[in-house]
Amino acid sequence: MTKEYLIKNVRTVPDFPIKGILFYDETTLFKQPEALKVLADTLYETYKDKGITKVVGIESRGFIMAPVLATRLGAGFVPIRKPGKLPAETIEATYDKEYGKDTIQMHKDAISEDDVVLLHDDILATGGTMKAAYELVNKLHPKKVYVNFIIELKRLNGREVFDKDIEVESILSL
Amino acid sequence: MTKEYLIKNVRTVPDFPIKGILFYDETTLFKQPEALKVLADTLYETYKDKGITKVVGIESRGFIMAPVLATRLGAGFVPIRKPGKLPAETIEATYDKEYGKDTIQMHKDAISEDDVVLLHDDILATGGTMKAAYELVNKLHPKKVYVNFIIELKRLNGREVFDKDIEVESILSL
Repeated sequence: MTKEYLIKNVRTVPDFPIKGILFYDETTLFKQPEALKVLADTLYETYKDKGITKVVGIESRGFIMAPVLATRLGAGFVPIRKPGKLPAETIEATYDKEYGKDTIQMHKDAISEDDVVLLHDDILATGGTMKAAYELVNKLHPKKVYVNFIIELKRLNGREVFDKDIEVESILSL
Repeated sequence: MTKEYLIKNVRTVPDFPIKGILFYDETTLFKQPEALKVLADTLYETYKDKGITKVVGIESRGFIMAPVLATRLGAGFVPIRKPGKLPAETIEATYDKEYGKDTIQMHKDAISEDDVVLLHDDILATGGTMKAAYELVNKLHPKKVYVNFIIELKRLNGREVFDKDIEVESILSL
């Protein structure tokens, strides 16, 4: 199964969630066993030699493949969540959205200075959420932080919000 | 690693999210590679011979282990989400919460009559959400639906909301 097959099986939904937005729906990949396996295998092959100890997923769609990869790598899984969801002591980051601001939180004891972290979310659009997540994870001073997406929307240039020395990978470019 | 070890490593947080509630925090399991592996292996051993073709996870914390198990079983993963999150045609179920009502949605094309489904969420408390999810999945007439949780809070008797012939399993009883 090729990346072209995966791309062809991403469902595109016009005007969702609002008029003018073309939404890329990955549920049509996740529900197919073969496509799910290719996603998992591709992630594993990309990161198996990086010494990753924690895979961090961003709520909610980043929760889907991050634990799959963590399990395959023999790493732990850590959630970044919306405010008020994590019960113990948290650190947080606030970032600008098109209208207003958004905040994300992570448990303070989730990452240590010995960790090598992979940060995962499903889609790279403008990159605002992931940039905030990158800064959030770095507050806990892990050795290194990699950044990964399933789909990168090239026309939105989200990759440009990250410094050039950050290793940003995506499985599919659309 | 034993179940007793897993239970000891679930973090309990008093008065979260509101006063009087003792919250069971599984993030302390997910972040430990060995505990995550035991959770994944236990789920796999429990369901490997059931012919499961779709693992359905309930947003958000049910998204964590459901795709791990789907990948291990060679099944697909399907999300049940809060309203307005799924972009294609959905079916939905509404159920009573302590204050007011809640609604969950699933894509109509996510399950077929040939599927054997495992429904997964992280914690069985009163069972209201999972009961609604069970009815939601059954609207699409799969061959069979199994129900699974990581943690079951026995004192809340959530298991009693399910008919006796439904196979409800939990990894840890607390």
